[in-house]
Amino acid sequence: MKIAIIGAGAIGLLTGAYAALSGTDVTFFSRTKEQAKKLADEGLFLHRDNSIERVDVSAFTFGEYDFSTYDVILIAVKQYSLRSILSSLASLDVACPLIFMQNGIAQIDYAKQWEKYLPSIAIIEHGAMRTSENTVVHTGNGQIQLGSFGQTAQAVKQLCEKLNEVHFRIVETKNWQMILEYKLLANAVINPLTALFRVKNGMLIKNGSLHKISKRLFQEAHSIFEHLDKQEAWQYVKNVIEKTANNRSSMLADCEAKRQTEIEAISGYILKAGKQRGKDLPFTEFVYESICSIEEESRRSYE
Amino acid sequence: MKIAIIGAGAIGLLTGAYAALSGTDVTFFSRTKEQAKKLADEGLFLHRDNSIERVDVSAFTFGEYDFSTYDVILIAVKQYSLRSILSSLASLDVACPLIFMQNGIAQIDYAKQWEKYLPSIAIIEHGAMRTSENTVVHTGNGQIQLGSFGQTAQAVKQLCEKLNEVHFRIVETKNWQMILEYKLLANAVINPLTALFRVKNGMLIKNGSLHKISKRLFQEAHSIFEHLDKQEAWQYVKNVIEKTANNRSSMLADCEAKRQTEIEAISGYILKAGKQRGKDLPFTEFVYESICSIEEESRRSYE
Repeated sequence: MKIAIIGAGAIGLLTGAYAALSGTDVTFFSRTKEQAKKLADEGLFLHRDNSIERVDVSAFTFGEYDFSTYDVILIAVKQYSLRSILSSLASLDVACPLIFMQNGIAQIDYAKQWEKYLPSIAIIEHGAMRTSENTVVHTGNGQIQLGSFGQTAQAVKQLCEKLNEVHFRIVETKNWQMILEYKLLANAVINPLTALFRVKNGMLIKNGSLHKISKRLFQEAHSIFEHLDKQEAWQYVKNVIEKTANNRSSMLADCEAKRQTEIEAISGYILKAGKQRGKDLPFTEFVYESICSIEEESRRSYE
Repeated sequence: MKIAIIGAGAIGLLTGAYAALSGTDVTFFSRTKEQAKKLADEGLFLHRDNSIERVDVSAFTFGEYDFSTYDVILIAVKQYSLRSILSSLASLDVACPLIFMQNGIAQIDYAKQWEKYLPSIAIIEHGAMRTSENTVVHTGNGQIQLGSFGQTAQAVKQLCEKLNEVHFRIVETKNWQMILEYKLLANAVINPLTALFRVKNGMLIKNGSLHKISKRLFQEAHSIFEHLDKQEAWQYVKNVIEKTANNRSSMLADCEAKRQTEIEAISGYILKAGKQRGKDLPFTEFVYESICSIEEESRRSYE
């Protein structure tokens, strides 16, 4: 089978490497020509358990290719790139199943627009780090939970089987929407605060004042997911903080590298949902504007 | 005349240097023995206009001396040390006029407790930097505005005359309470935000998102000073930001040096006043907890 992966960040490269190991024909579509050339010329390197494996892949920049030959397309770009990627795919008359691999929750609405081609939502519970344009390190061997709107496409099921064969665990799950909501709650607390205060995740519990701010941010985020049990949800968020106490969050890393962050897909989503419900969410608004201000300075520093 | 200055930070040293230049007998009371010894042994050095002058002063640590011999006592400690200093002075039966030289506004309540000895409130509009334990640089030649509760003590008037003679401008003012309120509004915006985002003052206007946050913080702070014209007050705050655009605020400097900040006297004061009026001030609460979290880490780093 042939799959396309749009986006060659850590998660795209990781999934592509295992797919190639399983004998699947893998083509990457990256943002830059340099990365596409490197992947096509040198192959893709996967580090895991102190070993390195090399796999052959095809690679192009997005937009210069015919997408009609693929059985499945994995969308591994960040949430903020989804809109433009999907409108391109629509204009190219792509008609195969898509797998959405974003953080956040807004990809559900995009996936619904694709409903007739049986899209899936992937919840990534793997650790991965891209260390060069064609090298990915598998830092945490977890699993992918896969959700669908009713029926899962046959080609997607087949891809899952192949990935499971090479021990890249991927399981279908019914309550994926609730899992995404839980994850968004955790992200809404951990990401902006760690980026703003430039601290590791664990500090949000260790530091008394940050713990207070975390709790308030959680309460605001929970107010748009009131169907979730509040006690259980807060316990979940605290567990994530404790289990990842020594990690630097992706948003902190993005801010330090002066990259665009996922604030729009996280706090931005919550603010919009709050507005629709007539709720004032001032702590969320504060951190949203704070991260926007950091992004503004990052852009300025490139001018 | 003989004056005592309690607190040998930048403002205490600056005022003391000019007082000594004017022929006044000056005694410092510092927190550390080292500083008192240095001031007494080596004298106090005043840098201004590219020249250095040396003046003789007496110096002790606070508490080891008889305070009954002074005509005026200047209290030049930070707001957060006022309570303990004043209870010591009360227990020593001090009965002379005090001049309160703090940032913030809560010193008014302390001064009122001293009303029978004709206290004054000094509003400092000088720039000063302490560069060693007995060296102060006069970085901005402004003025001191002096307010009283009705009558100004004769000894205080006399001290003002002497200071004005050596061109250390000090003027009596009627609307000192309003000036303090304006200054608190500016401090409530500038200090916590510059410290939290680690930026110079001007960034609060230059950066669109920080400008939004600044405006919200201002609105909350203004809600406890509703007798002040809102438009004029916001214009005042913006003017201060523009005029000090290249400055690093005192709270930013305190956070970077891992010192205690004046957050309690600024945002803490506004939160308390808001609570008394039944007002919810979430942006103020956010920055208050944020600066507390930074102070908590500073204390931890000394453990």
